[in-house]
Amino acid sequence: MVGDDIIAAAEDFADAAGAVIRPLFRSALLVEAKGDASPVTKADRDAEAAIRDLIAARFPAHGVIGEEHGSHRADAEWVWVLDPIDGTRAFVTGRPLFGSLIALLHRGAPVLGIIDQPVTGERWVGAAGRPTRFRAPLGGRAACRPCAGVGAAELSCTSPDMFRPADRPGFERLRAAARRVTWGGDCYAYGLLALGLVDIVVDATMKIWDWAALVPVVEGAGGRVTGWRGETLTAAADGRVLAVGDPALLEEAAGLLTDR
Amino acid sequence: MVGDDIIAAAEDFADAAGAVIRPLFRSALLVEAKGDASPVTKADRDAEAAIRDLIAARFPAHGVIGEEHGSHRADAEWVWVLDPIDGTRAFVTGRPLFGSLIALLHRGAPVLGIIDQPVTGERWVGAAGRPTRFRAPLGGRAACRPCAGVGAAELSCTSPDMFRPADRPGFERLRAAARRVTWGGDCYAYGLLALGLVDIVVDATMKIWDWAALVPVVEGAGGRVTGWRGETLTAAADGRVLAVGDPALLEEAAGLLTDR
Repeated sequence: MVGDDIIAAAEDFADAAGAVIRPLFRSALLVEAKGDASPVTKADRDAEAAIRDLIAARFPAHGVIGEEHGSHRADAEWVWVLDPIDGTRAFVTGRPLFGSLIALLHRGAPVLGIIDQPVTGERWVGAAGRPTRFRAPLGGRAACRPCAGVGAAELSCTSPDMFRPADRPGFERLRAAARRVTWGGDCYAYGLLALGLVDIVVDATMKIWDWAALVPVVEGAGGRVTGWRGETLTAAADGRVLAVGDPALLEEAAGLLTDR
Repeated sequence: MVGDDIIAAAEDFADAAGAVIRPLFRSALLVEAKGDASPVTKADRDAEAAIRDLIAARFPAHGVIGEEHGSHRADAEWVWVLDPIDGTRAFVTGRPLFGSLIALLHRGAPVLGIIDQPVTGERWVGAAGRPTRFRAPLGGRAACRPCAGVGAAELSCTSPDMFRPADRPGFERLRAAARRVTWGGDCYAYGLLALGLVDIVVDATMKIWDWAALVPVVEGAGGRVTGWRGETLTAAADGRVLAVGDPALLEEAAGLLTDR
């Protein structure tokens, strides 16, 4: 469904984003910014603009949706979805757990996704109908692991502070049922799920550029990415995302999150 | 106070620990362990045993305190303090934010500390009276940054779940006053503080092998590591640790933690 040429182009886009982002990581500019994210916002914008230029040159008929520069032809058959720096807090504090997210939608469904970590050199590439590839300078292999149930599951969440009041009871039910929770990670946590090191990841305020790339990466490694009710994510999704490494976890986890 | 030969030996000890630990990171063994830390405990034990053999051969008069194999001649003038895998949860879930901690005490005071990240190759080396050195394959420079006050501070904590009930009010006061909090990191968060990317790190249940190496690393970069009352840490410390990048933050942060 997605040709090798499109995948190679998406990897070029990730390279272009990395070239903009890498020099800023832990730079004097960022130290002096003292936690202010504006230099990161600038890098995010510049990286997205660089990718948009490449898309316009190579795929002029394709649409683009980006966190920083908005939507262009979002109703096209093929639409790229971009977030060059997912995990701003990780970036600002020098943790190499942020990622560049690049996805391609076909008639609204994500058919290609890249999670790129430009500092460690790690890269997850997922495409519909293909096994996820992982470039692994730090080790690891793309394959979700089986998990006997939520009670045996390693749960991961970006931050305990990210849940809206209405979402907290569902999250607390899941957390109480899970074997353990670890914090931090943004898109990187979904990458770890695709390596069989985490069993469930939950988020509550995701935009399409936060989740679109994760779907092909996780599903090409054998897992599932859905809404909290286990439903397929669409452009109309409410921001609540559930990922499981073992698809057999989906019903139990969704039941806990939504108190079914 | 600490000779080059001792520092070189400590770096050899970190290399020895890394050689034991690195092959396990994200290995099939760890994926199959499904969150069970026992393979990590074995690596932790094996790495500590390897370092103890080196110490016995090179410094037979020195004492050793380790998390895994207990104390030997803990009343010696020079005592090594070891924790080859600090950040077990990070290790188990595949996050490269754990570290090997190696410290040397002289008459009870830490005069040498190493934080080693054997997967990324990052290494912080601190020694009393010397500037902290940082081996930086991912970027960064060892130097704490100035910070105008707790209200401007980037705070970092391993987990919101680690505080005992008695410690929670103090932590909540500090958290409410700080500019922002990021989660996760264990010893790595102290390393980021020594790079000027984080301003305050707080922990509540630290043993001597968790904190001894951090003191020379952070203080050699211009910061301070103390107890929650701002007091010097000793073998009798209560486990509550406060690190600040800017020494001017110490009084305000300690005041919030202890409601002075």
